[in-house]
Amino acid sequence: MGSKELVPQQGLPPGFRFFPTDEELLVHYLCPKVSDELFSPTIIGEIDLYKFDPWVLPGKALFGEKEWYFLSHRDCKYPNSSRPNRAAGSGYWKATGTDKVIAVGGRRLGIKKALVFYVGKAPKGFKTNWIMHEYRLCDSAPSTSNSTKKQLTTADTMLRPRRVFTSYVVTNILSPPHCTNQ
Amino acid sequence: MGSKELVPQQGLPPGFRFFPTDEELLVHYLCPKVSDELFSPTIIGEIDLYKFDPWVLPGKALFGEKEWYFLSHRDCKYPNSSRPNRAAGSGYWKATGTDKVIAVGGRRLGIKKALVFYVGKAPKGFKTNWIMHEYRLCDSAPSTSNSTKKQLTTADTMLRPRRVFTSYVVTNILSPPHCTNQ
Repeated sequence: MGSKELVPQQGLPPGFRFFPTDEELLVHYLCPKVSDELFSPTIIGEIDLYKFDPWVLPGKALFGEKEWYFLSHRDCKYPNSSRPNRAAGSGYWKATGTDKVIAVGGRRLGIKKALVFYVGKAPKGFKTNWIMHEYRLCDSAPSTSNSTKKQLTTADTMLRPRRVFTSYVVTNILSPPHCTNQ
Repeated sequence: MGSKELVPQQGLPPGFRFFPTDEELLVHYLCPKVSDELFSPTIIGEIDLYKFDPWVLPGKALFGEKEWYFLSHRDCKYPNSSRPNRAAGSGYWKATGTDKVIAVGGRRLGIKKALVFYVGKAPKGFKTNWIMHEYRLCDSAPSTSNSTKKQLTTADTMLRPRRVFTSYVVTNILSPPHCTNQ
């Protein structure tokens, strides 16, 4: 266990840990962040995820054992495109598997996407065992505040008018299975 | 979520839940209980597990969503045998799979056994999807207190002199996959 991870667990009975459902991540962390950029949860730090190799990320998390959670601004490859920029550190993240739609109360709220990290330049990078689950809100997902929605659109709608609710993602980084203490 | 489960989670950020490792269950809950019968953790209740059908157990747990934890005295089939009594409620628990040895710091501390519940009389019961993971200490596992160890042996060694550390088990009951709100 890292030294940082005791912060939120302090005082809890042994065995309690952060183990959120997909729905909880969207409803309690991503929605509030998208609606209010000043929202700063005490247990999920905000970083520019694509600046770093994944093995650097555990050291930047507020806590975590084999999984680490981050809020990150969604970076786009081109100014007038919604295509995400997946280059990161010394390599790139590549989508794998099928996206999962996350519904809350019968409504599509978000998308969960799995990505694998490759070292090197696409498309000839070397696959690693580092995995990321990226959660983003569906375009039609509701904001929790109209006023903050307007603040966000000021910066966002000029570039991607239909994507004002996907400006942030929340991610879950998983270390390779053989790494137990990174 | 059941109404009871908010007790230990109250005040925690969303996404925190009781999700202990095998080692944590043994070290922080079973070892203290075996060493001191008066040990009463606030989050794992003590019941006579074999009095009940598994679908009754969620209502008797201190909290839980799809998994519930209990401490239970280890019941033996015959007075002079260490063979456990697996009859419970309207059926019986039957071992499945391979036992897992749980080591802590390189030492064998306990055994994790998976069991499935059958309705009816053995060996012709009907298999259900209710699963139990039973954790017991290895016979050689250390007590945390010599004095309480002596208190326990008063009752225990007369029947099973080599099994003073297996008088309690901690269990993890898992509901069938299709049950989401039991």
